[in-house]
Amino acid sequence: MLTPAIHTTHNETLAAELDRAINNKTKPLGSLGALETLAKQIGLIQNTRQISISDPAILVFAADHGVVAEGISAYPQDVTWQMVENFLAQGAAINVFAAQNKCALHVVDAGVNHDFGPRDGLIDRKLAKGTHNFAQQAAMSNAICTAALEAGMALAAELKGNVVGFGEMGIGNTTAAAALMHKLTGIPVAECVGAGTGLSPEGVLHKQHVIEAAVARHSRAVTPFDILATFGGLEIAMMAGAMLKAAELRKVLLIDGFIVTSALLVAARMQPAILDYCVFSHCSNEQGHQKMLNALQARPLLNLGLRLGEGTGCALALPLLHAAANFVNQMATFESAQVSEKSE
Amino acid sequence: MLTPAIHTTHNETLAAELDRAINNKTKPLGSLGALETLAKQIGLIQNTRQISISDPAILVFAADHGVVAEGISAYPQDVTWQMVENFLAQGAAINVFAAQNKCALHVVDAGVNHDFGPRDGLIDRKLAKGTHNFAQQAAMSNAICTAALEAGMALAAELKGNVVGFGEMGIGNTTAAAALMHKLTGIPVAECVGAGTGLSPEGVLHKQHVIEAAVARHSRAVTPFDILATFGGLEIAMMAGAMLKAAELRKVLLIDGFIVTSALLVAARMQPAILDYCVFSHCSNEQGHQKMLNALQARPLLNLGLRLGEGTGCALALPLLHAAANFVNQMATFESAQVSEKSE
Repeated sequence: MLTPAIHTTHNETLAAELDRAINNKTKPLGSLGALETLAKQIGLIQNTRQISISDPAILVFAADHGVVAEGISAYPQDVTWQMVENFLAQGAAINVFAAQNKCALHVVDAGVNHDFGPRDGLIDRKLAKGTHNFAQQAAMSNAICTAALEAGMALAAELKGNVVGFGEMGIGNTTAAAALMHKLTGIPVAECVGAGTGLSPEGVLHKQHVIEAAVARHSRAVTPFDILATFGGLEIAMMAGAMLKAAELRKVLLIDGFIVTSALLVAARMQPAILDYCVFSHCSNEQGHQKMLNALQARPLLNLGLRLGEGTGCALALPLLHAAANFVNQMATFESAQVSEKSE
Repeated sequence: MLTPAIHTTHNETLAAELDRAINNKTKPLGSLGALETLAKQIGLIQNTRQISISDPAILVFAADHGVVAEGISAYPQDVTWQMVENFLAQGAAINVFAAQNKCALHVVDAGVNHDFGPRDGLIDRKLAKGTHNFAQQAAMSNAICTAALEAGMALAAELKGNVVGFGEMGIGNTTAAAALMHKLTGIPVAECVGAGTGLSPEGVLHKQHVIEAAVARHSRAVTPFDILATFGGLEIAMMAGAMLKAAELRKVLLIDGFIVTSALLVAARMQPAILDYCVFSHCSNEQGHQKMLNALQARPLLNLGLRLGEGTGCALALPLLHAAANFVNQMATFESAQVSEKSE
């Protein structure tokens, strides 16, 4: 596998130019808060003062998880394929929010346990009908995990826009994400697990025990790749590959909730500079997400108590990216508008 | 003055119907967080399950403040009229964000110290060339304050849409807002004052002392109306009037930052049921705003460290109102999409 080479966006000259452009706008210094930080970050990613948001797209990766056999989800596994059908029928939350905010939506079958047949609007990259149960064996072979990363890279390379959001669907995938989080951050499993789609407190405790036992069983997994293959999902691996490629291509990466952030965590352990390209759309209500964001020193744009996945946080945050680009491109300067500057 | 009669939106039957409609959507229970609360609130305001966002508009009220003579602002008073010119030339942040999110923008001269003459796009409701300096005398006579409230009511009555955002421009108006906050909540002045457009710590301390002295001087102001007339601004009073009328007409009120919330505080002390109609767009970086929101038990949608005013928070939050309406109106239900429900 050829890992993309990701360069830091650090550029002192451009950063100073962006600061000047932002500070000359007709507003008190710093008064657009997080939008100013965002505008500067986008400028550095795009390596220009002429920042733009063009053809934003969200990739939603769907796959199934063998670990559902352990009874770690509030919903049956069939919901994965049923929700993919719902995406194709435009009935899910991500369809509504992506359409509202004029964001393209690409649904990818990375490994759903269902035969969809050829379908309009579904990108078939199925590598298996789900992962193995990581309570018993590694979720993926090295070959399958590599294939998933590569398929994600290829998908990202095909996107024409300069902003890519990431979303997922996969019953059981908060369990995989919590295991990845524990292995990659060292945070105790109890602080990584949450209610997912709606587990009872007893269900969360069971999920914790399943992960703890699996972590003990697979103690030899230590590299990011091995950890991904052992505990990850096909959608998570494909997403990580797409993220790596999108960052190499200097696109803005729009990160969603707990599962998407776990894929980024894997990618960031492989290529730390990827974080320069990431805009964190929101802090989810899934309990481990805030700590995962902290581990990445990430400041999310929204905090709306969402815990739906699908990329919904990305779609909802997109107008803020447009706002960041628009204020830089469209606002008057103190000079152009002949507005007096600060007097003290 | 005829005060609008505002009724609570409380309606148990409709609330239960809205809960059912929201909970039947294809998503884990409660997983859209604040958007679910928002959708329900909008339904109760509009008294229907068919919620809609139609013709949203932001009213930006501008006026000057006599108290600037005390040296309480980082910018000269001329910036008020200069920024009004900037609004008319489409160069300000609010122009950019309102246009982006397809929100009408109405700029109202409530009392700017400048002769604009008749101007396209400027609604002339000038009642005086600014307020008196409240460090020395009441900011407004009772007659002027009443006229401002009534002018605001008339403006709100003319709006055709069902969502009204509020914004303001007025050098010195964080001083007026801090005084109103202190008088209406009892929170110490030191916790109500902030840097406004960018005061130094010494400047903030001076502002605090100016307010404390004025509060001591005007100790007889105790009713919400008297407090408004004594410490308020023409833009604040006109905004409070517009808010009261808009709530009577069962519109959604979109509240911006520190100054707009101070106008709402006045209106809420007159008619507490107005709070049922308020969506708090954001928590500002102006230091008193969080405490003001707490005093109103308000949960803001955004927290982006903005402190610009103009209604910018309203314009930026508007896509979230659309999202709330859209998910209720457009998402599939578990039944319509044939998705399995929770299994435990």
